[in-house]
Amino acid sequence: MLSIKGKMVIGQSGGPTVVINQSLVGAVLAAREQPGITGILGARHGIQGIMDENFVDLTEAPDRGQLERVAATPAAALGSVRLKPGEAECARVFESFRRHDVRYFFYIGGNDSAETANIIAGMAKDASYDFCTVHIPKTIDNDLKVTDHCPGFASAARFVALAFMGDDRDNRALSGIKVNVVMGRHAGFLTAASALARQQADDGPHLIYLPERAFDKARFQQDVREAVARYGRCVVAVSEGVADADGNPIASTGERDSHGNVQLSGTGALGDRLAGFVHEAFPGEKVRVRADTFGYLQRSFPTVVSEVDAREARTVGEVAVRHAVSTGENGSVAIRRISGTPYESDCFVTPLSTVAREATCMDDAYINDAGNNVTGAWLDYLRPLVGELPEMGNL
Amino acid sequence: MLSIKGKMVIGQSGGPTVVINQSLVGAVLAAREQPGITGILGARHGIQGIMDENFVDLTEAPDRGQLERVAATPAAALGSVRLKPGEAECARVFESFRRHDVRYFFYIGGNDSAETANIIAGMAKDASYDFCTVHIPKTIDNDLKVTDHCPGFASAARFVALAFMGDDRDNRALSGIKVNVVMGRHAGFLTAASALARQQADDGPHLIYLPERAFDKARFQQDVREAVARYGRCVVAVSEGVADADGNPIASTGERDSHGNVQLSGTGALGDRLAGFVHEAFPGEKVRVRADTFGYLQRSFPTVVSEVDAREARTVGEVAVRHAVSTGENGSVAIRRISGTPYESDCFVTPLSTVAREATCMDDAYINDAGNNVTGAWLDYLRPLVGELPEMGNL
Repeated sequence: MLSIKGKMVIGQSGGPTVVINQSLVGAVLAAREQPGITGILGARHGIQGIMDENFVDLTEAPDRGQLERVAATPAAALGSVRLKPGEAECARVFESFRRHDVRYFFYIGGNDSAETANIIAGMAKDASYDFCTVHIPKTIDNDLKVTDHCPGFASAARFVALAFMGDDRDNRALSGIKVNVVMGRHAGFLTAASALARQQADDGPHLIYLPERAFDKARFQQDVREAVARYGRCVVAVSEGVADADGNPIASTGERDSHGNVQLSGTGALGDRLAGFVHEAFPGEKVRVRADTFGYLQRSFPTVVSEVDAREARTVGEVAVRHAVSTGENGSVAIRRISGTPYESDCFVTPLSTVAREATCMDDAYINDAGNNVTGAWLDYLRPLVGELPEMGNL
Repeated sequence: MLSIKGKMVIGQSGGPTVVINQSLVGAVLAAREQPGITGILGARHGIQGIMDENFVDLTEAPDRGQLERVAATPAAALGSVRLKPGEAECARVFESFRRHDVRYFFYIGGNDSAETANIIAGMAKDASYDFCTVHIPKTIDNDLKVTDHCPGFASAARFVALAFMGDDRDNRALSGIKVNVVMGRHAGFLTAASALARQQADDGPHLIYLPERAFDKARFQQDVREAVARYGRCVVAVSEGVADADGNPIASTGERDSHGNVQLSGTGALGDRLAGFVHEAFPGEKVRVRADTFGYLQRSFPTVVSEVDAREARTVGEVAVRHAVSTGENGSVAIRRISGTPYESDCFVTPLSTVAREATCMDDAYINDAGNNVTGAWLDYLRPLVGELPEMGNL
C-alpha cells in the first residue's frame, strides 16, 4: 500500500490516567517527524470534539518543553469523553474527517475506543477513502486483550500498593478492621495490586476480593473473623465491581453512564455497606471498622508514576504513528513482555478486531482457590511493572 | 535544678502521620548521646503500653540503619492509642514509671497528649518524684496552640494539594461537579491546603468549606451553581467536620470514640450527602456529580512527604530530649517561623499548660469574607511548608 498523505487527528477517551498524556505527546512528537502527516489536530474530548470540529492545532505549537510538561501531567490534556458512539455518531465523525482531509486517526483509550476506531475504519473502507486508524491502549483497569498489560495500569497499581503499604501501618498503629475499595468494574487487576504492599508475613492486605469471583457476604464475614483472630486486626482490599453469584453488584447508587454502566466510583456506598457487614460479623462486640474508597486519586495523582509505565505509554504513542505511516494498516498497539527479570518489553500491532469490544479479566492462575487472595504468579507478573517500592521499617 | 538520671519512656498517640516516626527516631538517637538517660523504653500504643508495662527496649538496638528506615516509614512504629486518660489511668501510668525508675517521659501527640503529660507531671510533683516530661507536637490537623505549625501537617497538606491538582485535571477531562472530603474535625487547615493546587485562574478547587464557618446548605448549592455557570464544572473541598449554624455535623454515623468524638473518617457518608445536595441544586438536569473522601491516605501515604516537615519532625524529637536533660523542665516543643522566604525556623519550649487541652483553628485572616475560600495570607503561610509542587502542563 502506498503511503497516505494528509492530516491526523488524535483524541483521548474514557477514564484518565497519570500517563495518558505521555502517549499523546509520544504520538505528536513522532508525527512531527513524518512528512506524510501534513497537520496534527488534537480533538477536544475525544470523538465529541471531532463531531463538533473542536480541534486544537498541534502541528507546530506548543514547543517540546511545553509538551514535556503536558506529558508529565495527569489526566487527559485534550479532555476526555465517555461516549460509546452508534452508527450515526461514527458517521458524523467520518464526515468531519473528510471535511478536514484527515487521513490518520489515533484514539487513546480502552476497548470501547478500539471499537469506535474499528467502526470508522469500516466506513472509510466502504467509502474507498484512504484512511488509517491506530488505537493506542490506555486503561488503569488493565483489561485489554492481546497486550501483556495496559499503559496507565502500572502507575495506578503503584498508587494502590503505596496506599495499602501506608494504610497497613496505620492499621497496625490503631488496630481495627479496615476495608479499602479499589477501582475495577469487571477486572480485579488494580485491586490485586494491593498485594504488593506486603513485605512481612503479617502485613496487609489480609484479604483481597475481586470481581472475577462471586462475593458471598457470609464467607466475607467468616474470612474477616478468621483474620482478626489471627492478626488482631484486618485490612481488606475490595474491587468496586464485586457482585454476588447472581451478578448483582454489592453496592450501586443506580446512576448509569452512556455505556449503561452503574456508577461505582465517586461514592462511598460500597465501603459503607461492607463496613456494615463487618459490624454484623461481630455481634455485641465493639470493633473499630473503617472503610475508605480510594476514588479518583488512583488514576490522577501527580508524582506517583511507574517509570516503566511512563516509558511504555510514550512508546505506544510513537509506535502507533510510525506504524500507521509506514504500513497504512489499521490496528491497536500492544505490549509484549520479553523478559520479567530484568524487565524488557517491545511493542507490536494487533488487528483492531482483536481488541475492540470485549475486555479481559484476571487469569485463574492469579487468584487463590478460596477466591480471597492472589497467587505468587500474580506478584511475578506485576512487580516489574510497578517499580521499586520503599522498604518499611519496624520496631 | 540538678540533672535527673534515669530511664526514659517515649510513646506515640492519636492519629498517625507520615513523619511521626521521624520525631521518635530523633528523640531516641538524641537520648543515646545523653549519659543521664540510663535506658530508653518505647511504649507500645502510648499510655496503654505504659499501663500494661508493654515496652520495647530501644537503649541500644535497633541500629541506626534500621532506625532510619523506621523514620522514613509512615504511621506510628510503636503503635498508637486513642485514649484520653482519667485520673485513675494517669495514676497507673505514674505507678508504672516508678516501678521502672522512669524519670523522663516524651509523648508524641496532639493537645490531648500534652494534657496527659501535664497530669502525670503534676502527680510526680505531688509525690516529690524527680521527673521531667516533654510533649513532642504531632498532628495533621495543625491545631496546636503556640507553635507556628505542627509536624505532620505539611506532609498531609502536600498530599491534599497534589490530590486536588490531579483531581482538578481529571475533572477538566471529564467535566462535572466533584466534591472531595478532607480530614479536619474542628480546624480547616488541611482542607485549606487544597488551594495550593491552583496554578491557573480557572483551576480548582473552586470552593472551600471549613469547619471554622457554619455550613449552610442553600448557600452551598448557590455557590456550586455559580461556579458551574462560570467554569462549566466545579471542584469543591470540604472539611469532614463542617457543621451547621447550630453546630450539628452535616454528616455523622453516630459512632463515638473514647474522647466523645463522632466518627467522621473511614466513611463516605458526608461525601454522599453533599453529592445529594448538589443533585438537588440542579433539578431536572442531568449533572455528573462525584464525591471522594480522601480518608486515611492523607496521613499515611508513603513517598508523599514534605522535606521541611520531615526535618522539623526530627528536630522536635531531638530538642525535646536535649531540653529535658539540660533543664529538667516540663514543656512542649514548638516551632517558630523566623522567615518565610527563604523559609527558616527554629524550636523553643513552651509550658505544657499553654498547649494542653484546648486546640486552635484557622485565623480569620486566612478565610475569605464569603466563607467559601481562603486568602492570599493563607497561601503565604502554607507554601514554604509544603515544598515545590509539580507544574501542570496545558494545551
